[in-house]
Amino acid sequence: MSRPARGEIGDVKAWLESHAEAMVEELKAFCRIESVSTDPAYRAGITAAADFVADRLTRAGFPSVEIVPTGGHPAIVAEWCETPGAPTILVYGHYDVQPPDPLEKWKTPPFEPDIRDDRLYARGASDDKGPLMVPILVAEAFSRTRGGLPLNVKMFVEGEEESGSPQLSPTVARLKDRLAADLVVSADGAMWRADLPSVTVASRGLLAFDVTVGGAGKDLHSGRHGGSAPNPVRALVTVLASLHDETGRVAVEGFADNTTPPDPAILDAIRASDFDPAGYYRSIGAPLPDPLPSTEELLTRQWLEPTLEFNGISGGYSGAGMKTVIPSSASAKITCRLVAGQEPGAVRQAIERHLTAAMPTGFELTIAGHGPGSAAFALDPDEPALAITEDILEEVLGARPLRVAMGATIPIGAVFKQHLGAPLVFFSFSTADEDYHAPNEFFRLASFRNGLIAWARLFDRLAETGAGARGC
Amino acid sequence: MSRPARGEIGDVKAWLESHAEAMVEELKAFCRIESVSTDPAYRAGITAAADFVADRLTRAGFPSVEIVPTGGHPAIVAEWCETPGAPTILVYGHYDVQPPDPLEKWKTPPFEPDIRDDRLYARGASDDKGPLMVPILVAEAFSRTRGGLPLNVKMFVEGEEESGSPQLSPTVARLKDRLAADLVVSADGAMWRADLPSVTVASRGLLAFDVTVGGAGKDLHSGRHGGSAPNPVRALVTVLASLHDETGRVAVEGFADNTTPPDPAILDAIRASDFDPAGYYRSIGAPLPDPLPSTEELLTRQWLEPTLEFNGISGGYSGAGMKTVIPSSASAKITCRLVAGQEPGAVRQAIERHLTAAMPTGFELTIAGHGPGSAAFALDPDEPALAITEDILEEVLGARPLRVAMGATIPIGAVFKQHLGAPLVFFSFSTADEDYHAPNEFFRLASFRNGLIAWARLFDRLAETGAGARGC
Repeated sequence: MSRPARGEIGDVKAWLESHAEAMVEELKAFCRIESVSTDPAYRAGITAAADFVADRLTRAGFPSVEIVPTGGHPAIVAEWCETPGAPTILVYGHYDVQPPDPLEKWKTPPFEPDIRDDRLYARGASDDKGPLMVPILVAEAFSRTRGGLPLNVKMFVEGEEESGSPQLSPTVARLKDRLAADLVVSADGAMWRADLPSVTVASRGLLAFDVTVGGAGKDLHSGRHGGSAPNPVRALVTVLASLHDETGRVAVEGFADNTTPPDPAILDAIRASDFDPAGYYRSIGAPLPDPLPSTEELLTRQWLEPTLEFNGISGGYSGAGMKTVIPSSASAKITCRLVAGQEPGAVRQAIERHLTAAMPTGFELTIAGHGPGSAAFALDPDEPALAITEDILEEVLGARPLRVAMGATIPIGAVFKQHLGAPLVFFSFSTADEDYHAPNEFFRLASFRNGLIAWARLFDRLAETGAGARGC
Repeated sequence: MSRPARGEIGDVKAWLESHAEAMVEELKAFCRIESVSTDPAYRAGITAAADFVADRLTRAGFPSVEIVPTGGHPAIVAEWCETPGAPTILVYGHYDVQPPDPLEKWKTPPFEPDIRDDRLYARGASDDKGPLMVPILVAEAFSRTRGGLPLNVKMFVEGEEESGSPQLSPTVARLKDRLAADLVVSADGAMWRADLPSVTVASRGLLAFDVTVGGAGKDLHSGRHGGSAPNPVRALVTVLASLHDETGRVAVEGFADNTTPPDPAILDAIRASDFDPAGYYRSIGAPLPDPLPSTEELLTRQWLEPTLEFNGISGGYSGAGMKTVIPSSASAKITCRLVAGQEPGAVRQAIERHLTAAMPTGFELTIAGHGPGSAAFALDPDEPALAITEDILEEVLGARPLRVAMGATIPIGAVFKQHLGAPLVFFSFSTADEDYHAPNEFFRLASFRNGLIAWARLFDRLAETGAGARGC
């Protein structure tokens, strides 16, 4: 196969443009499949969506396509390893979608795709069926116009992303030789804002656990026993209140040990941002704090600082009126978001030490974790593939993208790094305003068109990089 | 009517002893009536019990007996004002009972009275049908043997004591001229321990309110918004933790203003008590605190110190597993027990000031009260009627009674003091171990017999006191 020089993808672009209408129809067909992963009632949709993806990859020209059992919903693994000497990328995406509830809030039914104002409305259109279709269609475009790809491409498409990806890490670990690549490119992961190109270079890790404080063996009368019996709500609020300082930052010794500084470009992006603190509080319907934090403080805390958030608290009576009871126990649910360098197990131990030391005498403390947690993701600021994605976004979208961080947790970065040793870049054309976990989810068709051109350039540019056919 | 000299009640005693069997049968008949006040399904039982009491008072010889509407369940008011120059007492009791649930835990059905080991097992036998029957039967004994009473006796028998007596205060206020008396004697209120005669001379007041902290207008994703959005659970635990010092005592400025010292005899009783702290914690199934508090500290805190207890706390997710949410609000239910001198309204204001000052910025604080609260009850240590009840208990039970306080709230003391200006003494022969809010409630028939003799002596002794026919 003769390889055109960098940037000369006019043939591929022309093919993509001439097939634009059919591609939208294909995306609509994909969106008609009710592939909700959390609800067993949608099992047939899951199977149909996995079949759709496998079939589409085969028709795109992938020589090897397999629906792989995972213990949960199946994953699709495809390999196109026919370009010796070129780098190998692994493309990640998912075929499952969020539940469509509340149904009554949809203007058109969630699984009957509808185009209005150059937007495709359907559950999953933005997350992640539209963005996932893009690299598949780009591979087909290269195949139809040139008989093959300029680099080696593998695909890993899972069906449990919207259910927390419980089988992702074990499946990637099991298939690590088959999935080996120089670079992982995620077709999932929305851009921050529709009006501002951005690349996500960091996301926070996650650690979840429950804290329970026990007092007496059963609820007691608060008149008869008040003052003498242990009140576990008092002990719980006492220890929970000691976890933060007066600014709301975590005050646990050892919690932030070994954190590494973020990519300075993220701080530049924050400083360049026109994010409005007062507008933020209004948008979430919260009272304005006094003094109001600066843009820099607020975004730094949302993107780059570790947190310890109380997700729930419960104990005793919570119905109408009053009940004169001393509860026998009280609990809180806690999740921490971790930044680069924090090791989930060490963080958990630091919090346990703190809670144990802070607990008043006469109570029982129980801490129960929800899994081992996941470390933060942070891409090396000097990763060459990152510069390539930034160049392409600037070319296609007309502005240099900001490097941004996400407060939320994207476990794939840490999972692929751990098992494949490969860096991951996000290259998705959905944006965070597309209501992808809400009614009336949509995908901008302009983003679909931009994405096709951008991915074609990405295949072309990455082919030029030095790395050599790892895993193929 | 010629009045026999003090202590000469052999005739009355003989009458009571000769009618012992019939009296137990009458009490059984009373206990067969299903007069549960909280549950509308028992409305017929409430009506039947009110009729039973009115009829029994009439048969005992009370010249005036009326079933009085209250807006809730009716009260019975009876007056026997035929002893000019003698003092007037108002006897308090109630005809309603606790619900019998859980029914399967009763050895014999709750409304089929059964005598085993000289104990009468039935719902309401101890609380308060047995103790209430005693003064009625004693009045009849005087009437049958002497043609009248040695003093003036009024009765106020309510039907909502087990539902929190919502109509008690307004009804007593409305009937204050008719109920006017020199002294209120309560036939309700159990003795502390079966093996130790005691008189209750103080009980704590009550103040109940809810605290709610609001943050954002709806629940938010704790990854996306963690660090920037207000977490109302954090604010709530922070302010709640500030309400107590490290010993668990209330740390609110102004909370304990104007408290008056307790009757020193209560402290003597505490010191004389063999109450075992370790045994107490074991009995409630709680871990032993280290160091273990002394008997004196523990009983002082349970009887004589004001409290602020968390009855419940809630906010956010409390189901299985985890949910990465920042709750939009969090609440706590709080009740305070007040000691003599604390004014419920002033205490509420002190707590509001404290919470408002402690609340971090950026949250909404709401405090909602459950009614005006009730002040503590504390009998004047030098009240002559108290010494009379103590003398009689010593004569009948063979040991000088201890003066004890109750941690729980008995609103009647404060209500009658407020509206009638009369002191209240407890003179009940039930004891706290008679399972009166649990299955297999019983009343010791020995206590029934002792109570009849003691009340006969009480009528006789009080007749000798100087006070003169107030309200008759």
